[in-house]
Amino acid sequence: MGAARRPWTYARSGVDRRAVSVALDRLLRAARSPRPPRSAGRPVGAPGHYAGLWAIGREVIAVTTDTVGTKVLVADALGRWEEVGEDIVGVNVNDLAAVGARPAGLVDTILCAAPDPRRFAAIGRGLARGLRSARCALLGGETAVVPEIVRGIDLGGTAVGFFPRGRRPILGDRLRPNDIILGLRSTGLHANGFTLVRRWLAEERLPLDRPRPGARRPLGEELLRPTRIYVRAIDAIADEPGVHGLAHISGGGVRNLVRLNRRVRFRLDQWPAPDGLFAFIAERGGISLREMYQTFNMGIGFVVIVAPSAAASIAERLERAGAGPVVRLGSLAPGHGVELPHLGLLYDEYGGA
Amino acid sequence: MGAARRPWTYARSGVDRRAVSVALDRLLRAARSPRPPRSAGRPVGAPGHYAGLWAIGREVIAVTTDTVGTKVLVADALGRWEEVGEDIVGVNVNDLAAVGARPAGLVDTILCAAPDPRRFAAIGRGLARGLRSARCALLGGETAVVPEIVRGIDLGGTAVGFFPRGRRPILGDRLRPNDIILGLRSTGLHANGFTLVRRWLAEERLPLDRPRPGARRPLGEELLRPTRIYVRAIDAIADEPGVHGLAHISGGGVRNLVRLNRRVRFRLDQWPAPDGLFAFIAERGGISLREMYQTFNMGIGFVVIVAPSAAASIAERLERAGAGPVVRLGSLAPGHGVELPHLGLLYDEYGGA
Repeated sequence: MGAARRPWTYARSGVDRRAVSVALDRLLRAARSPRPPRSAGRPVGAPGHYAGLWAIGREVIAVTTDTVGTKVLVADALGRWEEVGEDIVGVNVNDLAAVGARPAGLVDTILCAAPDPRRFAAIGRGLARGLRSARCALLGGETAVVPEIVRGIDLGGTAVGFFPRGRRPILGDRLRPNDIILGLRSTGLHANGFTLVRRWLAEERLPLDRPRPGARRPLGEELLRPTRIYVRAIDAIADEPGVHGLAHISGGGVRNLVRLNRRVRFRLDQWPAPDGLFAFIAERGGISLREMYQTFNMGIGFVVIVAPSAAASIAERLERAGAGPVVRLGSLAPGHGVELPHLGLLYDEYGGA
Repeated sequence: MGAARRPWTYARSGVDRRAVSVALDRLLRAARSPRPPRSAGRPVGAPGHYAGLWAIGREVIAVTTDTVGTKVLVADALGRWEEVGEDIVGVNVNDLAAVGARPAGLVDTILCAAPDPRRFAAIGRGLARGLRSARCALLGGETAVVPEIVRGIDLGGTAVGFFPRGRRPILGDRLRPNDIILGLRSTGLHANGFTLVRRWLAEERLPLDRPRPGARRPLGEELLRPTRIYVRAIDAIADEPGVHGLAHISGGGVRNLVRLNRRVRFRLDQWPAPDGLFAFIAERGGISLREMYQTFNMGIGFVVIVAPSAAASIAERLERAGAGPVVRLGSLAPGHGVELPHLGLLYDEYGGA
């Protein structure tokens, strides 16, 4: 504790983002295969976006894959598996919602050192809750018992979505200055930033079974709250022509917005004060605001960017569809990058996980 | 060595298949959510088959997910990663071919303890080769650096396919007695049975860098040969009405056939002598034929079951499409299960991984 303490950053927590990006770049350059023949469908261009889009026959599908990451280690410490089971759905279907796709189904992948029926049942209950919330089906799954490869459990999945008749993918290309940025509330950390949080918790020896100051639930339960699923709310507005851009605020925090469009600046000048958990992490961990906003969702899990004339009606439809209170975060300006002027923060690159 | 040695089985190698199946059953019962609304598409029934089938809009998609499993540990021992990179594609697209779907694209999932650019580049080259061979696209991927969850690397993926206009899924419901069972050659072990093989190799202290008796390549390289990709060959015949059933001979060996139809018996009375690698594993490991045929592909990686009148023409089309020599393995009879009468083997259940 104290002022001399080295602040917690992702680099210090053991994840060297640059090394990951170099390795990934090598893989992607090597994997760039000749374009497959037309008979296998064709790409609907959106490289680097939340989901891969592909035209097959008379439909366009969206595919995305993600894991729950090191949040499972908190689940393991608490012996609670339902929340992270639900996260398998949330982390994936929200990425489908972020291109305007409606989820059709999900496949889960569970890697474990040993199959434990009670854990698996809890994961299954969480999956069921997430699937109901996303209105999507379990299309299959893979369970591998590989004690030589994993310690504990890894939870991941892949979701496939589609575009209902008449709907076009929403990729951010129509964003323009003066568009309004709306935010939907998150429920805590969702499934991002856990590598950073866990290292810090371990070093600080903070007990997971006791509430932090000002909270009622034990800290561990608060950390575990499942990723909020925005699918129904976004599906309710995705056919509106006034919706110009969508973003799931996942790994990479507000920098996710850069993925939508590099020819506008996202000015977030009214970001609401994040709830107590984020403030607690920042303060007790000595983590800079810059690191906080590029790592955590900071209370806003999903962003909808709309034409100014449509802002009020779209906010109302979102709320009617169960999105909770919709917050106006700011607007688009000429330039590029993401700016939180009241905090003195500017991000140029996505750099997310 | 010698007669008193306890034979190698999967149970002895550390994978308790029954415990896996109990745990999985708990998960699936818990995950059984209410049917999603029609607006999310609808299932095209084939539970327990190689791929989940789902009707979206005017198309049917097929989704399947699998990992390379413990074969990566052989890759690690040899420092060779291109083959298992290709396997990410093979293990998944062959499962799409097994329902008659044409692959559209794949997403890969790489979990690793540390990102290594050289390894990643090799995995990428393997992915590219597999994608070219399957004529499918890389739709996205997830790379997670999670040293607290994995040791080394886990490689997996999810593939999405579709049915070209006019083609129906081939699920085995049209199988009937006297249909002819054709086999396509495998290239070694593909990606199955490695947990068994590796434990045995370790105990026997067999060197991976030297050829087994009768082989030219080092044993490690022989074990690593990538999964043969049957996609183009199967795509060439999948519109033929005489094709009644398709099976990818993956984990579970010949028992995979039971997945197609429980109201016919698969009589495999002409299984060709498997190549030297399988004989070597069986003999040196003291592994029973029963265990061998329920664990490994035994030289046949894919099975095509056809109407008797169409057998010759379909075999010829498969060979012209690059399937290699097509072998007649037997025919369907009244009853159920899989029988290799010349070996005295009968399997009632799938029980695969």
